[in-house]
Amino acid sequence: MTASRVTATYRIETAYPLQDAAESMAGEQSTGTFVRLPGETDELRERCGARIERLTELDTVAAPSLPGAGLPKGAGPNPVYRRAEVVLSWSLENFGTSLPNLVATVAGNLYELRAFSGMRLIDIGLPAEFANAYGGPKFGIAGTRRLTGVEGRPVIGTIVKPSVGMGPEATAALVDTLAEAGIDFIKDDELQADGPHCPFEARVRAVMAVVNRHADRTGKKVMFAFNITGDLDEMRRRHDLVLGLGGTCVMASLNSVGLVGMIELGRFTQLPIHAHRNGWGYLSREPSLGWSYVAWQKLWRLAGADHMHVNGLQNKFCEPDDSVIASAKACLTPMFADKPCIAMPVFSSGQSAKQPPATYAALGSADLIFAAGGGIMAHPDGPAAGLMSLRQSWEAAMEGVPLADYASSRPALARALETYGG
Amino acid sequence: MTASRVTATYRIETAYPLQDAAESMAGEQSTGTFVRLPGETDELRERCGARIERLTELDTVAAPSLPGAGLPKGAGPNPVYRRAEVVLSWSLENFGTSLPNLVATVAGNLYELRAFSGMRLIDIGLPAEFANAYGGPKFGIAGTRRLTGVEGRPVIGTIVKPSVGMGPEATAALVDTLAEAGIDFIKDDELQADGPHCPFEARVRAVMAVVNRHADRTGKKVMFAFNITGDLDEMRRRHDLVLGLGGTCVMASLNSVGLVGMIELGRFTQLPIHAHRNGWGYLSREPSLGWSYVAWQKLWRLAGADHMHVNGLQNKFCEPDDSVIASAKACLTPMFADKPCIAMPVFSSGQSAKQPPATYAALGSADLIFAAGGGIMAHPDGPAAGLMSLRQSWEAAMEGVPLADYASSRPALARALETYGG
Repeated sequence: MTASRVTATYRIETAYPLQDAAESMAGEQSTGTFVRLPGETDELRERCGARIERLTELDTVAAPSLPGAGLPKGAGPNPVYRRAEVVLSWSLENFGTSLPNLVATVAGNLYELRAFSGMRLIDIGLPAEFANAYGGPKFGIAGTRRLTGVEGRPVIGTIVKPSVGMGPEATAALVDTLAEAGIDFIKDDELQADGPHCPFEARVRAVMAVVNRHADRTGKKVMFAFNITGDLDEMRRRHDLVLGLGGTCVMASLNSVGLVGMIELGRFTQLPIHAHRNGWGYLSREPSLGWSYVAWQKLWRLAGADHMHVNGLQNKFCEPDDSVIASAKACLTPMFADKPCIAMPVFSSGQSAKQPPATYAALGSADLIFAAGGGIMAHPDGPAAGLMSLRQSWEAAMEGVPLADYASSRPALARALETYGG
Repeated sequence: MTASRVTATYRIETAYPLQDAAESMAGEQSTGTFVRLPGETDELRERCGARIERLTELDTVAAPSLPGAGLPKGAGPNPVYRRAEVVLSWSLENFGTSLPNLVATVAGNLYELRAFSGMRLIDIGLPAEFANAYGGPKFGIAGTRRLTGVEGRPVIGTIVKPSVGMGPEATAALVDTLAEAGIDFIKDDELQADGPHCPFEARVRAVMAVVNRHADRTGKKVMFAFNITGDLDEMRRRHDLVLGLGGTCVMASLNSVGLVGMIELGRFTQLPIHAHRNGWGYLSREPSLGWSYVAWQKLWRLAGADHMHVNGLQNKFCEPDDSVIASAKACLTPMFADKPCIAMPVFSSGQSAKQPPATYAALGSADLIFAAGGGIMAHPDGPAAGLMSLRQSWEAAMEGVPLADYASSRPALARALETYGG
């Protein structure tokens, strides 16, 4: 029986012949070193070597995208850098079903190879054995909808701002206002964890008292994503505190916690994991380097992330809209036939009533969290009107009615479009 | 009493006025959002805002280094992109002494800010409170020298190659050859962990039987860094197995394990941690993005890394020599007056007898691990001669004798220089 294989797709750029360059990648990430060694037999290469599954030439460029790349012998004064997409595969027997060891293989020393002036991991293909080895999201879309009581539209949320500086009571007072206004979801800022200005335990107690009071009255419990990012013991204690007080979500910063910490959190959590991607820019912003979100998000979903941040359309950051939509679609695409591991995409960053129609049109789904900060809190008629404007904008989007038309009889939406642009 | 502050130094590039750009960084990573909110008082800004400690203008460029950057209003058709070094500081009260939360602040959403076409974290300055919160390396240079019995010269080592494919017995046979030759240190390849071809436990048992047999005979125990990279439970079990069988080192891939996993490993380990940086390229290769090694290595040393990979001079990767030396010097620079947290730099990648003189001249220290693969195994007179050539080259380097002179009466070194270049 043939062992299952893992695939990884890369966008490469090189002045070397493409086939040679792809072979050097395959060698480096399987059996190779810089000279062929006595133990490296043909049988071993066949069994353990990485295989080139596909090599598709793309465009060429005159200048290297990244510094440090070498040139082949005999290169002229104006070398051409060829771009290509290459798919490598490895036998699962090289590393087993371990996500950390997978990462060392598919995203290890490749990025520094001299032959390349561009190296970006575009996608990863995992065999079904990985679905058995990791739990995936425990809640996902269905669990989040059940806990928030929101059906048939996005979960609408906000971020506690100012990011840092408000104490537990001020935070709870803000939550009171937002719960009164009918919000579905609120998250800590990723900069807020357990600093002396706003200790975690005091914040959770103050916030949950408010959340529970509103829930007792209305039957609707606001989902508050408490930022439990910290050492492992801290994350455990914080999770247990949130759970014990009736909270329904914990948040963690993926790049701060890392893969082993997130796998551990995914195993012990009894609450949805709201996964924050801060730092994503350093992994992705140079198009010729790093990770695509499509590849990257698979690791965290398998480890157990229920909500994945994807930025938002017309965001305040530098990411173009098509990239945001590709990320969100990736989160909504099943990973395995029997275990889809769907994570709910979280749209945020400069969001207001103006973005829902384009978001819905491009994504074709309302299974998402739509989070606005200023888009709710800075509405001229207050947070309740800000929140109302977001719901109305999503209604318009899902009914296919132009925003301006829908706003004509809805003052909250009309004022939002005046304020944020429409 | 004033709270201690954390500093972070960035290399930025922007078409906006530098002061405005630096203020946007400070705002984003402390109190800010895209509109000023009701709760954001001047007192709160003073207490919790990030402060610009220094802003030093550097050169200008005509084209943006990274895509996605915006232009200020009124920018002409040929905007100038200014580069600068900016130092920000935060009160420790914003996040406490938590490394994961520190990372979310100093290396969080900054990299995606539209105002910037370049954003690289150059250094981090941590107050002494962090030294109390984390353990740092438990072994470092002194512990590694004690366990290997090597004084007054580098610890000389090698990597088991082929990277993947040899079973436990073949690995142990190689270790036998190397131990016989007098090697100090051997490491697993980062691609080798616990795959079916070479299960971890069988490998450790086979290798340690050989290592212990040689130690019983000679009194010198080869330090073998077993790659324990895996989920947390796996790392614990593997560590305990290595410890129980008399092993003296464990290895972990930093970017696979992540910060919380490494902090946990740093707490429970009773053995030196050999920290592998595979994947470092995606964090660093674009000079206008990501992390400098100087900033990055501080996190892992504080978490407990005893050995840190720094690449090597004239390496097979794309990193220039001055960058390698800067990284190694960083590892040897104390982090705190009372707790230096020194990690031993590991030189590897394409190393042979030709590099020691330049390495010693540039670094000014022999407190390092010098690891060669082909430089030992592919020596025409065999591994013992390869190893001898490395020792001789280091002797020459430390005595200030030109390699060619030293080689004239030393055949192993002479043959190495013929083989690998001199």
